[in-house]
Amino acid sequence: MTERQLWERYQKHLCGVESVGLTLDVSRMNFTDDFLARMRGPLDKAFDAMEALEKGAIANPDEKRRVGHYWLRAPELAPEPALTKDIQDAVAAINAFAGDVHAGRVKPPGAARFTRVLLVGIGGSALGPQLVADALGSAADKMQVFFLDNTDPDGMDRVFTQLGDSLRETLAVVISKSGGTKETRNGMVEAERAWKRQGLDFGAHAVAVTGEGSELDRVAKQGKWLRTFPMWDWVGGRTSVLSAVGLLPARLQGLDTDGMLAGARDMDVATRVRDGVRNPAALLALMWFHAGGGRGQKDMVILPYKDRLMLLSKYLQQLVMESLGKELDVSGAVVNQGIAVYGNKGSTDQHAYVQQLREGVNNFFATFVEVLKDREGESMQVEPDITSGDYLLGFLLGTRRALFEKGRESMTLTVPDVSARTLGALIALYERAVGLYATLVNINAYHQPGVEAGKKAAGVVLELQRKVLARLRAEPAKAQSAEELARAVGAPDEVETVFKVLEHLAANAPAGVRREPGSSRFDARFRAS
Amino acid sequence: MTERQLWERYQKHLCGVESVGLTLDVSRMNFTDDFLARMRGPLDKAFDAMEALEKGAIANPDEKRRVGHYWLRAPELAPEPALTKDIQDAVAAINAFAGDVHAGRVKPPGAARFTRVLLVGIGGSALGPQLVADALGSAADKMQVFFLDNTDPDGMDRVFTQLGDSLRETLAVVISKSGGTKETRNGMVEAERAWKRQGLDFGAHAVAVTGEGSELDRVAKQGKWLRTFPMWDWVGGRTSVLSAVGLLPARLQGLDTDGMLAGARDMDVATRVRDGVRNPAALLALMWFHAGGGRGQKDMVILPYKDRLMLLSKYLQQLVMESLGKELDVSGAVVNQGIAVYGNKGSTDQHAYVQQLREGVNNFFATFVEVLKDREGESMQVEPDITSGDYLLGFLLGTRRALFEKGRESMTLTVPDVSARTLGALIALYERAVGLYATLVNINAYHQPGVEAGKKAAGVVLELQRKVLARLRAEPAKAQSAEELARAVGAPDEVETVFKVLEHLAANAPAGVRREPGSSRFDARFRAS
Repeated sequence: MTERQLWERYQKHLCGVESVGLTLDVSRMNFTDDFLARMRGPLDKAFDAMEALEKGAIANPDEKRRVGHYWLRAPELAPEPALTKDIQDAVAAINAFAGDVHAGRVKPPGAARFTRVLLVGIGGSALGPQLVADALGSAADKMQVFFLDNTDPDGMDRVFTQLGDSLRETLAVVISKSGGTKETRNGMVEAERAWKRQGLDFGAHAVAVTGEGSELDRVAKQGKWLRTFPMWDWVGGRTSVLSAVGLLPARLQGLDTDGMLAGARDMDVATRVRDGVRNPAALLALMWFHAGGGRGQKDMVILPYKDRLMLLSKYLQQLVMESLGKELDVSGAVVNQGIAVYGNKGSTDQHAYVQQLREGVNNFFATFVEVLKDREGESMQVEPDITSGDYLLGFLLGTRRALFEKGRESMTLTVPDVSARTLGALIALYERAVGLYATLVNINAYHQPGVEAGKKAAGVVLELQRKVLARLRAEPAKAQSAEELARAVGAPDEVETVFKVLEHLAANAPAGVRREPGSSRFDARFRAS
Repeated sequence: MTERQLWERYQKHLCGVESVGLTLDVSRMNFTDDFLARMRGPLDKAFDAMEALEKGAIANPDEKRRVGHYWLRAPELAPEPALTKDIQDAVAAINAFAGDVHAGRVKPPGAARFTRVLLVGIGGSALGPQLVADALGSAADKMQVFFLDNTDPDGMDRVFTQLGDSLRETLAVVISKSGGTKETRNGMVEAERAWKRQGLDFGAHAVAVTGEGSELDRVAKQGKWLRTFPMWDWVGGRTSVLSAVGLLPARLQGLDTDGMLAGARDMDVATRVRDGVRNPAALLALMWFHAGGGRGQKDMVILPYKDRLMLLSKYLQQLVMESLGKELDVSGAVVNQGIAVYGNKGSTDQHAYVQQLREGVNNFFATFVEVLKDREGESMQVEPDITSGDYLLGFLLGTRRALFEKGRESMTLTVPDVSARTLGALIALYERAVGLYATLVNINAYHQPGVEAGKKAAGVVLELQRKVLARLRAEPAKAQSAEELARAVGAPDEVETVFKVLEHLAANAPAGVRREPGSSRFDARFRAS
């Protein structure tokens, strides 16, 4: 195809959303008009399913849940007036609370104002807030936000060290729908201790975002936390960033949460249009289907040419992979669906792996994200008539061309800026694209049955650890091998797990387990010291 | 396979490096003994090639370069005494300079001490230093390190805002072998202006790491920079972290660079062993070959269960993908090799995409990284007999099991801690695994011919921009469409690029280009205002 033909193709297929100034260019995807025609029927079914979902159909049959993240930015669309009011009340409560915090009306016992936020959460309860904080944060922020998003003891220590003395002016926001997420619970328990160590009352510095009546709700009430914000069962973790999960920390940070909601709402309006070429969410879903043959045969490489959007790929990695990575389709047939997502930012990644994208295994399609606005204020010229931002665009266009020359497909999303409105719109765009694609490949995007197995297996490991420790303490003088201990605790086949647990305990002196060398690494003997 | 059989397999194949306390467990990769036997011949050839490389063979035929990153941690192995001395002198110079900076003997004109480092670099000149700074940094650091690693104007502004007034005590470290990398040059030019705006002399705050006689070397001399450290042509960017590129910023930060070098040296000794099952680099390379059929058919998912190692996957993404992602093999046949790499950290990623790993498209193999030591000091119990760190291990083992049950392969690297020694060892391990794998699939790991095309295409874009701007200014009263301007600058087929350039210029007011709506988006007219 000549450059002129590509320009024709660009004009023909460019899909724009005027209200948010976003365009999606699919001219470098090698689909045919025939493909679009063929997909019209399947896409209609996807629109139907989405319409039913928005009207309140049960979309998560495992948990008998509705899926209502679209209502969060248009409460009037919720299927019941009570829900509409819940959403409106929550937004009002968040705004009022953040205003009180900023004004010092809600304040910590030992300081004039809360100046920092420590968010404790994981997965959907951390990734969205992290994306928002990084994309929209600035020197003008009202509060600085920190995160505990893992159960890594050293990782938590690092955050507490950073916070240092300012813990007394830090507001902890603990986010967990059920309160049963162990990483979040551990983060909360370690946070409680950190506050206590400084002689501070954790409850006077904490709020919860959780489901009513959850374990966390109970803890918050019992500990006299400042307050609790709702997390509804009809909002999934990976689509919760426009609920209290994302709005509360963003509002506390001083960000334009109204703009985020408005951008998402406007994108929702544009992506309800039942037309595969004028609706960018539908067009995205069609392109994913085209690229991967509807079987996820190609990885999705996300390349935002903007530092502020570096976490977008990580956010989409969760949204796409957790939603689409499914063993069974809705009829119960084994399909092993999904699309792998990775990427960081351009042009930096050009110096990391674009070598492979251009020359190596052709197992991906790229999505460039172009941001028209370079910076606040004036740019200097780094060369006559050329700014750093001109280079950024030049590299994007250059790489897009270099990939296309070698038969590597790409799309380009163009947005005017990285504002609250734009970010809300991007989030809504991908939420709907994922939903539509799920119907195209006949899977349920709104459950995650595969994550339970690993958690259960982890529980087995911890139970074994408890038994092994009890056994070691019962005979403190006796050094025993993993093999012996596995038998002794009645799990003779779990030697490997017992061995791994013992090695870990022995490496952490305070655990009180000592290792004595054996004839081989595997015959080492352990005892309680 | 029963749990007991897996334990046997675990013991049989566990590959350990005593000197650094690292083990590689490949028991959950479904290779056969037959595979190992079959690979013995090819692996021998790989050992031969590596030996030749370490002795100074020309390994990058494009650029007629030797590849000597192994000499950096064992200078006595360099093929010539002059090289040995160069390496030793550079390390001594770095250590002396950092000592002088810390002691205030080398200091900025307007302050008692340099307290911050601003590293300007991209790709190999930023990723390694970023990994090291994040993995090993602590509250005890002597200097805090910031990065400019892109040509994003807003991204640079964010860093300058963070630095604020402390620019006067900030040491800029500009890293570019040739000095021709545009992102780095732009970063340097913008940095110069930032210093100037505060009335400061950039040269008195700057050092360079660059090749002798390079463009950057020239700039540094002319601007009377504090000094220059060497970057040799026999060190590739993605393997440069143990040259001045990584050692200088790490040493300034106050990190144990001697430990990093020692860990890498010890790992080199262990991975020179010509034995596929006792040498963890060889075993890694064999497992990659097994998993992807020697064609990169499976993605490499890197899952370090440790916050400090979160950048490891990004670092390996570059090392692996830029080294292995090649169109041609050494005989010139089209092979489109490579292995896609992604990942962040566990257990956080379990809440993001392990759903897809367990249930979805089986197009990956995982590498878990286990760190035995949980934290400095004592851990609290979050439940009776259980710490946050126990949970971390439990989730790792649980996910490993949950994946294996579903036929998803994984390896586990276990290290004692995240120390300088361990990090050096991990870097050396993967450097050699990449080199050996490259020979197994008959490609050159040490060049990157595919990155030039995108840069050249970017140059074309910028050249078009210059011509378009000149044209607009020549007739300031006349509004012209992209189509008209493309013709006017003699590039009638490049309308799309001209259109993209114009949209970008118009979105940045200071560029002085105004957009007037046309009958359609594509007919918009532009003029210099």
